[in-house]
Amino acid sequence: MISNYRNFRNSIPWLLLLLEVLFIIRTYFLILSLDGLSLAYDSYPEFQDVNHMVIFGFGFFLVALRRYGFSSTGFNLLIIVLGVQCSVLVEDLFLFFHLELNEGVLKSITKAIISMSAVVISTGAVLGKTNPVQLIVMTLVELIVFHGSRWINKRFLEVDDHLSLMHVHLFGAYFGLAVTSFFSEPSPRLDKNRSTPKSDLLSMLGSVFLWVFWPSFNSLLAEIKMQAVLNTYFALAVSAVTAFMLSALTSKDGKFRMTHIHSAVLAAGVTVSYTAQTINHPWIAMILGLLGSVITILGSHCLQSCLNPPLKIHDTSGVHFTFGLPAVLGALAQVVLLVTRKWTEPSSLDYLVLLHIGAFCQTISVALITGFITGSVLNTRLLKIIPVSKYFEDQFYWEFPHLAVGF
Amino acid sequence: MISNYRNFRNSIPWLLLLLEVLFIIRTYFLILSLDGLSLAYDSYPEFQDVNHMVIFGFGFFLVALRRYGFSSTGFNLLIIVLGVQCSVLVEDLFLFFHLELNEGVLKSITKAIISMSAVVISTGAVLGKTNPVQLIVMTLVELIVFHGSRWINKRFLEVDDHLSLMHVHLFGAYFGLAVTSFFSEPSPRLDKNRSTPKSDLLSMLGSVFLWVFWPSFNSLLAEIKMQAVLNTYFALAVSAVTAFMLSALTSKDGKFRMTHIHSAVLAAGVTVSYTAQTINHPWIAMILGLLGSVITILGSHCLQSCLNPPLKIHDTSGVHFTFGLPAVLGALAQVVLLVTRKWTEPSSLDYLVLLHIGAFCQTISVALITGFITGSVLNTRLLKIIPVSKYFEDQFYWEFPHLAVGF
Amino acid sequence: MISNYRNFRNSIPWLLLLLEVLFIIRTYFLILSLDGLSLAYDSYPEFQDVNHMVIFGFGFFLVALRRYGFSSTGFNLLIIVLGVQCSVLVEDLFLFFHLELNEGVLKSITKAIISMSAVVISTGAVLGKTNPVQLIVMTLVELIVFHGSRWINKRFLEVDDHLSLMHVHLFGAYFGLAVTSFFSEPSPRLDKNRSTPKSDLLSMLGSVFLWVFWPSFNSLLAEIKMQAVLNTYFALAVSAVTAFMLSALTSKDGKFRMTHIHSAVLAAGVTVSYTAQTINHPWIAMILGLLGSVITILGSHCLQSCLNPPLKIHDTSGVHFTFGLPAVLGALAQVVLLVTRKWTEPSSLDYLVLLHIGAFCQTISVALITGFITGSVLNTRLLKIIPVSKYFEDQFYWEFPHLAVGF
Repeated sequence: MISNYRNFRNSIPWLLLLLEVLFIIRTYFLILSLDGLSLAYDSYPEFQDVNHMVIFGFGFFLVALRRYGFSSTGFNLLIIVLGVQCSVLVEDLFLFFHLELNEGVLKSITKAIISMSAVVISTGAVLGKTNPVQLIVMTLVELIVFHGSRWINKRFLEVDDHLSLMHVHLFGAYFGLAVTSFFSEPSPRLDKNRSTPKSDLLSMLGSVFLWVFWPSFNSLLAEIKMQAVLNTYFALAVSAVTAFMLSALTSKDGKFRMTHIHSAVLAAGVTVSYTAQTINHPWIAMILGLLGSVITILGSHCLQSCLNPPLKIHDTSGVHFTFGLPAVLGALAQVVLLVTRKWTEPSSLDYLVLLHIGAFCQTISVALITGFITGSVLNTRLLKIIPVSKYFEDQFYWEFPHLAVGF
Repeated sequence: MISNYRNFRNSIPWLLLLLEVLFIIRTYFLILSLDGLSLAYDSYPEFQDVNHMVIFGFGFFLVALRRYGFSSTGFNLLIIVLGVQCSVLVEDLFLFFHLELNEGVLKSITKAIISMSAVVISTGAVLGKTNPVQLIVMTLVELIVFHGSRWINKRFLEVDDHLSLMHVHLFGAYFGLAVTSFFSEPSPRLDKNRSTPKSDLLSMLGSVFLWVFWPSFNSLLAEIKMQAVLNTYFALAVSAVTAFMLSALTSKDGKFRMTHIHSAVLAAGVTVSYTAQTINHPWIAMILGLLGSVITILGSHCLQSCLNPPLKIHDTSGVHFTFGLPAVLGALAQVVLLVTRKWTEPSSLDYLVLLHIGAFCQTISVALITGFITGSVLNTRLLKIIPVSKYFEDQFYWEFPHLAVGF
Repeated sequence: MISNYRNFRNSIPWLLLLLEVLFIIRTYFLILSLDGLSLAYDSYPEFQDVNHMVIFGFGFFLVALRRYGFSSTGFNLLIIVLGVQCSVLVEDLFLFFHLELNEGVLKSITKAIISMSAVVISTGAVLGKTNPVQLIVMTLVELIVFHGSRWINKRFLEVDDHLSLMHVHLFGAYFGLAVTSFFSEPSPRLDKNRSTPKSDLLSMLGSVFLWVFWPSFNSLLAEIKMQAVLNTYFALAVSAVTAFMLSALTSKDGKFRMTHIHSAVLAAGVTVSYTAQTINHPWIAMILGLLGSVITILGSHCLQSCLNPPLKIHDTSGVHFTFGLPAVLGALAQVVLLVTRKWTEPSSLDYLVLLHIGAFCQTISVALITGFITGSVLNTRLLKIIPVSKYFEDQFYWEFPHLAVGF
């Protein structure tokens, strides 16, 4: 098995080389313009915030596993840089077929980074169980499918550009869950998928880091940016308080549990992502933040005890309750808010509600279906080479010249 | 005692729930406007800097204790989000009674974040000795009192809005000291309130992080922003050099001491906070930075050997010399600079000097008096439940599913 | 020997005091203006990015050594703050002799920070082998020489201001190498210059941090900022992919090696630094990123096995292949791109090519020559006091009140 992987491992560089050569050749024919860029420079600080958040923040956020820190950070960087290039080229292809407007390279990279968070979320579900080749294949497939799903939303379901991007959480979480359902569970006696207090602390710092940047994420492409920032901020604040409250309520002895705090402080960011720019009073955002946090913590209890064991799903970073459920709640909230706002114009209401529900169903079903297909492909003998006993193990992928003392 | 706390601990979630419900209801009646926000968006990058600094940076800065990393980071986030909500509502109440102008929600959140640094500083003094309920009570009381003190300064002592906020360091440090004087000292044999090399390193990184963002903090609401940035930058630079110099001079064998560097690199930021926007030549800022660093390091020696033992004050993070003394020096420097600048107009000088001294005395005395009251309330049987032996102990508040091996 | 150092160590504070007093007196006569600063404030976010990157990011990046984290972070801060002050004053001196234009203090600090990366890079080569006095002397000498070299480039070789600053990588790497060639190699049995998995992980996070901010670094003073940002971004993306590819290809068993990833993800940033603002199509930047990464990883193998042992050079952080070789490649690429662009105007081409090559040769030879001189001065009996057995040892410079358990 191991020697099997050794042969296989030698194919990683060639795959990367092939991809990179394809990307460079394809970029040679790039249609996206570099013109008029001096004008775009004032949105650079916000772009930088999101870039910083997705690349550094998620790398930091995912260091929780005891023996998987190198891979979490390293592979996160690898798939993001591959994904951003791929995403820019896919967008360029859409442009070639006149399916989208030419908005310049910076806008395109911005969207690419936001789209990549779908992949990063999916990665969280399979963290430690996939080899780099599987990760790369998953990244490319997921990105292309997400672009497709986004295009359908925009073209047929009248979703605007910003909102179509905010489906990243929903798409990423359910795609990741569908993929991970094909991976066998690690043995319960295995302790490598646990965290240490030190790695938990680093991961908590990563979580606070994401918390700080979430308003930038939700507002980057919004039309009424400041409203999106403020609503997200209020929602996140309530969500953090609720996280502490529910964590003490649901755990033994009234102690706080780090994994609860870790997931639930971010839940509100996901929950209000669809509605942040349209909510016109902070108390609504606060209620949504509260509900987002509630659904995350209750979800984490229900899913881990009731749903995951019979379905044999092992969701390493808990993306289902951290990103999936809050996104479902957010989509629901979007419809409810729409209904309350447009109550007086019943003529257009039905149509709008249908469109919203359609976009939701289309996104989640595409995510699940393509996720299942991807998961089954990744589990063919060709790609799936890691034995379960080597899950969550940095030493399987990285040279360790250092003695392992004191780690 | 322990079972006592267990019962007590069960009240934390209900307290949080109560507060959050009150906040949401109160927000429903918010007067602060969301209008005209598109204009305010260009100050978002600086707002984000300060947000990042207070929430992430202070969380990082406070990880120094051996067994208290989870609580330092976690509770820091909890009290900040509670405090920001509370502060916005207090400001809204002032608005309701026509005591302040309506400047919009973003400005209000910005001020809330800056005000919260007072609370974070106070927390540093009692770090590891308070349970979450005590922390929350302290946060709310301190914030409301600080708002009151700030309002007196603005209304009766002609302090402008920006300067009234710059009293955070002074207020936070002396409030924290007054509170901590009611807590019994940990046993000298206890080693849990020491740091490890690893936690010291993280904490040093946190300190460098705060260093980098301090110019944004001092300039965020200043009128002549760039001058505030540059003077703060020069002062911080000199302060860091002086910190190394004095650390080597005052310690055995000429070695550097991490806690010195840790506190003194930031001293200058506090010292010039009052004057950064009015100093018209960098060399004055540099002298202030030098003096700030000197007072911090000498203060740390004097206080720890002469003042604290007889008064039985145990100041966990040394906020007295890190924030308190430099703030006193800064207030003095403000008066001296005023005198040198207005020397030619003796008519108005006396009045202005009196106002400055009045604002200083009012702030510090309100901080001390309310601090003593808060400290004594926190020490009633109702709230004070942690035995001294459980000080500085994460496991008292957090579940530790991980084996404690290798921590 | 040790007692020798003890006496010597007592001189550090006096050296710092002397420097600081000189700086403050010199600043008193500063010519650089604080006027018109309110206009400059909109470039503050980008300034802050670079400030954050150089001070926090490099401090983070250099924590790789097992027992040298305190010194890496602490001394990095110390030399940067000294260097920035010194650099501002040197620029002011140039102004005094009418050699440069007065562009205000902010611009001057910005350039000072960028210049300091030359020193930080040189520090990487001698990391762990120098005492603070040697570091300070090296910093001041290197900064002044770099300013001189930059001035020659601007005055006689028609290099514009931005490009003259982009020589930092080249200058820093070769100056550092020349200095380190005078330091004796640590014993191969010594394990203190190795990293631990924990420190490698922190250092990898630091590397990702630098990766995120590199586009700001390359664009800060560029004329066509957005083009510089985008080209750097594309180059960095390709470079990260190539780093993983080559690391797997060149190491045993196809495993990744952390030090490869660590250096090579940044190589592209250095490679495109000269050309980022003039490249008019991303694919060229991508090719450069690919080549930069290739030269770094191949260079690391060749240098460590063939060149360094006979020349007895011990380059602690591998600055030769991380910064030196990519900068040489970048300078070459600059000439090639110039030739392809100006092919149609052969009249001016020869002259321009000569100027470029002249600037390159002037920079590298000044770096090497002054580096050798500095290295030999630092090795006189007066300054060189650390025995080789005390290399890479925090405890030689810092008090360790903590027990060394569990580090």
